[in-house]
Amino acid sequence: MREVLAQAAFQLFLERGFERTTVDDIVARAGVGRRSFFRYFPSKEDAVFPDHERCLAEMTEFLAAADDSDPVGAVSDAARIVLRMYAANPEFSVQRYRLTREVPGLRTYELSVVRRYEQTLAGHLRSRFGEDGDGALRAEVIAASVVAAHNNGLRLWLRSGGEGDPEVAVDHALALVREAWGRPAASTASTAPAVPEASTAPVVPFAVSGGGDGDGEVVVMVARKGTPMWRVVQQIEAAVGEN
Amino acid sequence: MREVLAQAAFQLFLERGFERTTVDDIVARAGVGRRSFFRYFPSKEDAVFPDHERCLAEMTEFLAAADDSDPVGAVSDAARIVLRMYAANPEFSVQRYRLTREVPGLRTYELSVVRRYEQTLAGHLRSRFGEDGDGALRAEVIAASVVAAHNNGLRLWLRSGGEGDPEVAVDHALALVREAWGRPAASTASTAPAVPEASTAPVVPFAVSGGGDGDGEVVVMVARKGTPMWRVVQQIEAAVGEN
Repeated sequence: MREVLAQAAFQLFLERGFERTTVDDIVARAGVGRRSFFRYFPSKEDAVFPDHERCLAEMTEFLAAADDSDPVGAVSDAARIVLRMYAANPEFSVQRYRLTREVPGLRTYELSVVRRYEQTLAGHLRSRFGEDGDGALRAEVIAASVVAAHNNGLRLWLRSGGEGDPEVAVDHALALVREAWGRPAASTASTAPAVPEASTAPVVPFAVSGGGDGDGEVVVMVARKGTPMWRVVQQIEAAVGEN
Repeated sequence: MREVLAQAAFQLFLERGFERTTVDDIVARAGVGRRSFFRYFPSKEDAVFPDHERCLAEMTEFLAAADDSDPVGAVSDAARIVLRMYAANPEFSVQRYRLTREVPGLRTYELSVVRRYEQTLAGHLRSRFGEDGDGALRAEVIAASVVAAHNNGLRLWLRSGGEGDPEVAVDHALALVREAWGRPAASTASTAPAVPEASTAPVVPFAVSGGGDGDGEVVVMVARKGTPMWRVVQQIEAAVGEN
């Protein structure tokens, strides 16, 4: 019934436009009573995006089950749940993208949904980073970066008419975020930087003071090649900070 | 007139609630005709945020005049224009923040405004980074990071009741973004990492191959202490990538 209503609604939106389609039109096309519509959808807008609630629930469940070893990786994978929802039905996703661009009310609705995804990701990161210090700040900024990267990849695919595999563009975009936030790139990203990931080899930084005025001082760092870049940066910062 | 209408509207929203206040109530309180309201504001929501259009225009003008030397710095400074608009009237900003949290329609309106700021910043970065390669992607992700960081600092200040200087929290948040995106921290940020900024001293990285299987290889890097972290990372990546 839910699916039948969503399909009827979407056909009418494409035929007549979103604004000119009423809930009465939708239930007439679907052959059901008016109350059935509101049993499934709070508003016309919700019928355009019938899967976001399920997707948000799935994301929440996924994050609750994620281990603590790699929070940025976990929220990146959680974002991929949204991508798969779009990729499961390319034709519908592309038509909806075009419709959404033309209807301000749908764009606004979509912004609120995106914001809810972002808050879900930020909530997870906050729970892992802690509220103290920059925990909450980092959580919000990284969640915003992940969402922007995901949406950039998704949008490229939607604009291309849903051709090919959207995961390629999204993986590439998410790798850029991981890189910026000081973590090794995901192994699925062929565009990752050349630093091998996930090595536990220690960095051994040490500072050599070359002069009393601070100008000529140098830092000498020795690291195994497998060392992730985030650890290199962390250790250099620690060494420089101590001096 | 515009100011009078905005004040009358806001007083009524606080007294009666946003939903229960009509445009007729507002013009009656302001002592003007109904058409005057719509001459200044397209909707009730716009009267709650009377300064965003001016602020967007100022941001666009500021970015158009920015030089090309530091695009991330330019969009960070552009975001501070929004902060100053809030900081110019702490009591109004705090009351509006509380009102917005209670009225879903205002939250949605605010999301669209935030999105327009983000698109303005992304547009500037895109024009500087270029559309090729990762230019557009980086532009969108950095714009989203800047907006999230700005809003985190702004929200801290609003939640505290508008006490103190909001620039401190926002500068700190924006410094985190600059750090993540491989640029030296802004000099206004006292919380910047200990690496001195803007040094032109070169990094001299070189790789020493310690074995044929790649496992035992190490990277030895020598850098002047004034070298910005983004350059250190760039050079290490370049050195590791060559091997």
